[in-house]
Amino acid sequence: MDIAKRLAELGLQLPPIPKPQGSYVPAVRSGNLVFVAGQLPMREGQLTCKGKVGRDVDVEQARAAARICFLNAIAALASAGVDPGQVTRVVRLGGFVQCVDGFSEQPKVINGASDLCRDIYGDIGAHARAAVGVNALPLDAAVEIEAVFEVALAANVTAAPGSSV
Amino acid sequence: MDIAKRLAELGLQLPPIPKPQGSYVPAVRSGNLVFVAGQLPMREGQLTCKGKVGRDVDVEQARAAARICFLNAIAALASAGVDPGQVTRVVRLGGFVQCVDGFSEQPKVINGASDLCRDIYGDIGAHARAAVGVNALPLDAAVEIEAVFEVALAANVTAAPGSSV
Amino acid sequence: MDIAKRLAELGLQLPPIPKPQGSYVPAVRSGNLVFVAGQLPMREGQLTCKGKVGRDVDVEQARAAARICFLNAIAALASAGVDPGQVTRVVRLGGFVQCVDGFSEQPKVINGASDLCRDIYGDIGAHARAAVGVNALPLDAAVEIEAVFEVALAANVTAAPGSSV
Repeated sequence: MDIAKRLAELGLQLPPIPKPQGSYVPAVRSGNLVFVAGQLPMREGQLTCKGKVGRDVDVEQARAAARICFLNAIAALASAGVDPGQVTRVVRLGGFVQCVDGFSEQPKVINGASDLCRDIYGDIGAHARAAVGVNALPLDAAVEIEAVFEVALAANVTAAPGSSV
Repeated sequence: MDIAKRLAELGLQLPPIPKPQGSYVPAVRSGNLVFVAGQLPMREGQLTCKGKVGRDVDVEQARAAARICFLNAIAALASAGVDPGQVTRVVRLGGFVQCVDGFSEQPKVINGASDLCRDIYGDIGAHARAAVGVNALPLDAAVEIEAVFEVALAANVTAAPGSSV
Repeated sequence: MDIAKRLAELGLQLPPIPKPQGSYVPAVRSGNLVFVAGQLPMREGQLTCKGKVGRDVDVEQARAAARICFLNAIAALASAGVDPGQVTRVVRLGGFVQCVDGFSEQPKVINGASDLCRDIYGDIGAHARAAVGVNALPLDAAVEIEAVFEVALAANVTAAPGSSV
């Protein structure tokens, strides 16, 4: 799968590998799973969406932020030596929405990431997800999204017939 | 393991596959792990427990809600083509409790899920867990629980002797 | 890798396996991944850091608490039959900071765990991470940290050449 081409069709471009906010790395591969660190809605080094959803930020703005988080998540794969085109399944997204008490539309917000994931990856983009609200996020970001991706094992590993690997 | 029978012994019944609240799927299998999406205490399409624990909802009500979340989590396995009886280990539960500031009994609440898990699965139900409080959850639900299960690899994959797979 | 020796060089000692706060186990191994339950900053059975960061607890105190959480996380491995010296990669840390609204330095707090992880494990300690704020944690703890570690498969499992396992 040529992700750069697919992104171009969607009017998008793969950003550079996101810079971690602390003493960690953007992504780690173990076997055929890649764990991607929590991504903020950063674009060109700037936080694009700040504040609490339901007070400073509305659902549409937060959805757009979630979309940017997901783009950063696939950009993060490169830090584990994985090309986003090697993804064989998007396994799980974890979405945190910085919001006011009583805000209950976290699913709509995180759909910004999930819908883009399906637009990019099609059927293999169908993922499990947890979306929750929190009272505070790093840098006062409105949204943070982490991910688990499946990639094929190295070509010289022969999967047994019938295995889901 | 016949889960339907075990549930019947406990006076319970496997609910249908839970309907996702957004653009995701209830469960994804990758290799021998199944990641189940965050489950709310929904029963027959209705949210059974709404509001903040420590204000609108007490610990016993929230425990009962966590129990329903876990039933939904095992029902979700079918969406990844997995029968709950194929589970070889419950690996991890993640529990989010929508609560007031100062509420610190998240473990008692999430025990509603963990205790049911042990009642159903016995020794292979012993799982790792993270339980935290949050200020807001989808649909104003009092509890949300996600899970990771291990299932045996397909029968034609021969695990090496001594492997934990 | 001799973790006891490495810890001694850092002036530290491996604590005993942490006691779960509910109906779960400290760690579960599935294949070559070990999922460690959420750890609180407990030392010798006492919670060392209580209250909200940004009000009752400052960033330095919370960092120190995160460090203790991580020590407990590696101590938890033994409950899954894994020696901390068998770790081949620290895959992911999940950090929850109990904090006031508007607190945005979760990365600095969770660095207490991440920095110690790198000090102990060196290059294989480079991990993915999600750090978020929450309004409430079990026992009123200031920090909770969960982890995923990779361990080598049992010696009698021959990894295919080129496999990352």
